[in-house]
Amino acid sequence: MSEEATQSSPIGVFDSGIGGLTVAAALRRLLPSERIFYLGDTARVPYGGKSRRTVERYSVEISGLLLAEGAKIIVVACNTASALAVPRLQELFRAPVQGVILPGAKSAVEKTRSGKIGVIGTRATIRSGAYEQAIRQLRPDAEVFSEPCPLLVPLIEEGLLEDEITDAVLKRYLDPLLARGIDTLVLGCTHYPLLSPAIARVAGPAVNLVDSAENCALAVRELLETRGLAAGPVFNGSLRVALTDASEGFLRVAEEALELEIGDVELRAVQSGS
Amino acid sequence: MSEEATQSSPIGVFDSGIGGLTVAAALRRLLPSERIFYLGDTARVPYGGKSRRTVERYSVEISGLLLAEGAKIIVVACNTASALAVPRLQELFRAPVQGVILPGAKSAVEKTRSGKIGVIGTRATIRSGAYEQAIRQLRPDAEVFSEPCPLLVPLIEEGLLEDEITDAVLKRYLDPLLARGIDTLVLGCTHYPLLSPAIARVAGPAVNLVDSAENCALAVRELLETRGLAAGPVFNGSLRVALTDASEGFLRVAEEALELEIGDVELRAVQSGS
Repeated sequence: MSEEATQSSPIGVFDSGIGGLTVAAALRRLLPSERIFYLGDTARVPYGGKSRRTVERYSVEISGLLLAEGAKIIVVACNTASALAVPRLQELFRAPVQGVILPGAKSAVEKTRSGKIGVIGTRATIRSGAYEQAIRQLRPDAEVFSEPCPLLVPLIEEGLLEDEITDAVLKRYLDPLLARGIDTLVLGCTHYPLLSPAIARVAGPAVNLVDSAENCALAVRELLETRGLAAGPVFNGSLRVALTDASEGFLRVAEEALELEIGDVELRAVQSGS
Repeated sequence: MSEEATQSSPIGVFDSGIGGLTVAAALRRLLPSERIFYLGDTARVPYGGKSRRTVERYSVEISGLLLAEGAKIIVVACNTASALAVPRLQELFRAPVQGVILPGAKSAVEKTRSGKIGVIGTRATIRSGAYEQAIRQLRPDAEVFSEPCPLLVPLIEEGLLEDEITDAVLKRYLDPLLARGIDTLVLGCTHYPLLSPAIARVAGPAVNLVDSAENCALAVRELLETRGLAAGPVFNGSLRVALTDASEGFLRVAEEALELEIGDVELRAVQSGS
């Protein structure tokens, strides 16, 4: 970890855009004494359709900006970046790096009874097979059925959280998974918790939903405690948000849906071309 | 224009991603002797939700890559970049720059009888007011009704060109425009011609569709002829495609829908971080 990082240093959180605010919101609830610095790479959002090399490069650059803010831990609040870039970040940086995949996989294995687990996410996350691998390491006989859901992020970013169009899209994505008899569904994208009520409605009461944002926050708490980096109760927690492009539309959707208090949004430049 | 540019130099075409291939396809049909070099900035797609400053910066960088390929003209096959970045490109580069907005506006004014014109596009294109301004300059009494349609590009990129979900989304976007009595609808995004049959079905036979790709190709032909840069019939035309990220999924959708022959796709790096 960075030599200057102390208990009062901020938790650095990044996502390709705004979806990772679900993780920031879970961290705020769970760790109210922590300062959180959130950086959304809205200049290059989304990562979900891009190649491993590009997602790695972007993730390294954004993590560097978090470390420049004195972050004591890097939280990869993006399933695509977690699936593709965490090993590279762990190679390059001494600070602990926490992604969303392992906590989600762990929770899914705890929740399932039948061992039939569905995973939904972006095209890149699903193609990486990261959830499947992580789940199989924990429970080798698990059956994992995956479905890329590329239209969900655009629908969420448009604020169509309760909408018949969204329900129709969800039905199309989930029907093949439901037909396989899954009893647990991993929401493998940090945007998806915003759609939890609609997903629960379409999936039905027999399916447990695994919220990767919530489980990531629990893993961050454990990691900070293990490393002696947790802020004590004497600290006043806060959330600062910075974006790489001034596109605040969806930010306000998330702010409202997550009941987050976000003040002025800062800007950070990426790439030398700026 | 660049001092080395000659009649045999390629036409440089760029878009934030793959949608601009509708312009490349129209150029291939209209100007079969021309060599076309197409560059899609798939590493940073989409531009449609990003700020003017960011879209300008990306457009300048990509145009520089086209000039490095010896392009004799820069065709901005992206409505967002046309709306936001063409003035900046014209300031910086000596090569002629052709966007898609003016040709589309001109065609809309020629086609309308009632003077009531609808425009659909990305959020950034609609917010810029570029079509409205261009149409009003040509016909000051025109009434222009605009509607941002942010879900259409994701639906098109998923290949849902004929699908009830796409029809439901289109209906929601077009109903307010149809209620205003438009007789002409500008497809203000180079992706949208791939959706022409569905749009025509939802808009009904009383509404003329204006295809900005087709009209842009006509404007390029005129500009090349005026500048003495048109390739003669002795030249063998071709299409080369390069992308800034290796994400070929939608490329194959477009290739099939547009009946284009695209061979190997080249890669071009953007940003120093690569």
